[in-house]
Amino acid sequence: METKLNEILRVEHPAALTVMTGLGKRLYFPKGVPVQAGEAKRAGCPFNATIGELKGEDGKALPLPSMQETIVNLSSEESFLYQAQGGRPDLRQAWSDHISGEMPQSYSLPVACMGLTHGLSICADLFVDPQTDVLLPSPRWGNYDVIFGMRPQGRIHNYTVMEEAPDVRNSGFNIKGIKRAIANIEQKGVLVLNIPSNPVGYTPTSSEVEELLQAIEESTKPMVIVLDEAYKGMEWESSSVQGSIAKSFVNLDPKQFLVVKVDGATKELFFFGGRIGFVTFLCNKKSAPVLEEKVIASIRSTVSALPSPSQAMVLRALRSDTLQHEVGEIRGLLRRRYETLKRAMDERSVPYFPFNSAFFVLVRTPNDAEQMRQYLLTKGVGVVSVPSEQAIRVSYSTVSLDKIPKMISIIADALDAFQEE
Amino acid sequence: METKLNEILRVEHPAALTVMTGLGKRLYFPKGVPVQAGEAKRAGCPFNATIGELKGEDGKALPLPSMQETIVNLSSEESFLYQAQGGRPDLRQAWSDHISGEMPQSYSLPVACMGLTHGLSICADLFVDPQTDVLLPSPRWGNYDVIFGMRPQGRIHNYTVMEEAPDVRNSGFNIKGIKRAIANIEQKGVLVLNIPSNPVGYTPTSSEVEELLQAIEESTKPMVIVLDEAYKGMEWESSSVQGSIAKSFVNLDPKQFLVVKVDGATKELFFFGGRIGFVTFLCNKKSAPVLEEKVIASIRSTVSALPSPSQAMVLRALRSDTLQHEVGEIRGLLRRRYETLKRAMDERSVPYFPFNSAFFVLVRTPNDAEQMRQYLLTKGVGVVSVPSEQAIRVSYSTVSLDKIPKMISIIADALDAFQEE
Repeated sequence: METKLNEILRVEHPAALTVMTGLGKRLYFPKGVPVQAGEAKRAGCPFNATIGELKGEDGKALPLPSMQETIVNLSSEESFLYQAQGGRPDLRQAWSDHISGEMPQSYSLPVACMGLTHGLSICADLFVDPQTDVLLPSPRWGNYDVIFGMRPQGRIHNYTVMEEAPDVRNSGFNIKGIKRAIANIEQKGVLVLNIPSNPVGYTPTSSEVEELLQAIEESTKPMVIVLDEAYKGMEWESSSVQGSIAKSFVNLDPKQFLVVKVDGATKELFFFGGRIGFVTFLCNKKSAPVLEEKVIASIRSTVSALPSPSQAMVLRALRSDTLQHEVGEIRGLLRRRYETLKRAMDERSVPYFPFNSAFFVLVRTPNDAEQMRQYLLTKGVGVVSVPSEQAIRVSYSTVSLDKIPKMISIIADALDAFQEE
Repeated sequence: METKLNEILRVEHPAALTVMTGLGKRLYFPKGVPVQAGEAKRAGCPFNATIGELKGEDGKALPLPSMQETIVNLSSEESFLYQAQGGRPDLRQAWSDHISGEMPQSYSLPVACMGLTHGLSICADLFVDPQTDVLLPSPRWGNYDVIFGMRPQGRIHNYTVMEEAPDVRNSGFNIKGIKRAIANIEQKGVLVLNIPSNPVGYTPTSSEVEELLQAIEESTKPMVIVLDEAYKGMEWESSSVQGSIAKSFVNLDPKQFLVVKVDGATKELFFFGGRIGFVTFLCNKKSAPVLEEKVIASIRSTVSALPSPSQAMVLRALRSDTLQHEVGEIRGLLRRRYETLKRAMDERSVPYFPFNSAFFVLVRTPNDAEQMRQYLLTKGVGVVSVPSEQAIRVSYSTVSLDKIPKMISIIADALDAFQEE
């Protein structure tokens, strides 16, 4: 089974096979109960005794009333019963439609997964082993090390997202750093691009993306480019790229490169607790089903089906006539917080790294970042320390507009206090 | 960090370390954003800018209206925001209370996971590598091979659940088969016990469990015993063990044995689409937090947080005064289906393997099981083929009471038709 899948990749998208791990090569979706249940359903059997889930005497879902009482506007079937492996087909199609404007012409049908972490972890299953050089942004969301390092034992190389200027506010997107990181690839590489960046809150300009693409094309090694687009759509300045950068990679040679896009409802639809992400490949129509099956097989061997209530909720939002308006309202609020925060910081000359997107700003501290974090806790301000950049990450997504000036004032005072020492 | 954890296990539960994989030994939970966010919360910071989730101007969750409109009787915070790694503490405690009657005195706080598959996959992360002999029931739920074989490359050995008699209806629980399988363990073993069994639908008697325990104790190899208790509580005959068999293992020597219980809301609370399972260890109070952290670290590196709506729904059910009654109603319906099915089969002398629990019965076919499945599809009956036993699995959980006699009549006719050939 898996041999046949791998053979299709060898012909249709050679890089996908070159970069694939042993596990990735072994993965295929076994024909089991879900498949036989599907056959009985399609055959229209009046007696369907295939699957180990429960139906009532009326053939409908039979949830416990104490759970049923929490759900409205969704059917019990879509809330309480199993959904298809890899996600409901209607949800996958709806997400495909949702992203179609930002994608090249040919891409796989998005496979649903358990949120962004899971999408990245699936990429690690398929492409990262101890012989893989993994290029990760620095600073980064801490879980990257766990997903790409601790678990599959990839060789981690850092590239610094911002090339630091003497005044950190003049720092720029660090193409040179990415080039240097790419040069570390021995056999095969995985380049993780997190745009908009967490924790930097930076999205590059079109010309910076152009330079990035050139840097990638200059490499001679087989490479997977993983786009972590958790914060896609939350760009607050017109000078940066708006939305996904996937289209930029459409002309990369499939003999050498494979591009995977990981995104989802977690941040983009503000459904943090839902755990609905998507994995989508830039590839031709023959490779697509193979890569989709590898992803679904990875999911089958770790968590199997995905949460039905969350899937139904995301699908309802995607189908809503008012979705754009609903998302726009919240983005508008975040943009106002961004503007208020930036203005307040400028007034106090707070030394921040350039930021234009997502939920964050990095502020350079005059002292140890962890010391600053602890100090700010005593002043009523909770931030995250980013020791590698001697900075604190300030997230404005959880702080109300009216509190932002006061919060920045406390932070600026703290910076001043330690500056003087 | 992980060295300290492993050292505790070496002293407090040596077998846990002896059987642990390289990945299991490496796993620890990194102090990241969730921990720093927790500190800011506990410090009561009026300005909490730690976490990348969204709060409205009133400090509350701010979901999209089209999703919000699906939830009642749960707060937006518990439905839309992130919950603690390893599951909400109140949910974990509620499940601990839920199982306390069936557990020995000392056990770990259950860690929530994404359903039964995920619980088993976590066990594979911790305990299965190419040097591990994994003893699996036959016939079995097909995903076992993917979880314990394809992914971590454990050496799979089968034991036949039922020792077949000339008339399959007289078959018995196959202790000898388990003994033979245990003899295959070279360095270290993982014994997976699926009770009640899927697809056999059999739960052993107390004396059979006693014999099983003896067979385990006779082994001299380090061993993890994984209890897959998906169908726990669905025993339809008083002659079999009722509920979990965990207590039987309380006196196993921690120098040689570790017992892990995997259960969850999927079947036990009829929440198939929820994806809420639990992993619980039989161990002392010093090993418990270490093993819990290993599990949470495994989760963190694959799917991170768990679905919030599902967690809130399960917790609501566990806290409901009417839970026992609600579950009892559904179990009562299943029991009536079981009795009706058994009576109908006895009337037609259908050759079934002994069954007394869960949702299934295995019926011996006179011909190839897959051929019989295909034939039954044309007669309007969907079943699952189990070629290893030359049997079909008939699931009565999805067939209404009034349809069961007719369904059995069709099956019996089909058996007769092929018998005569």
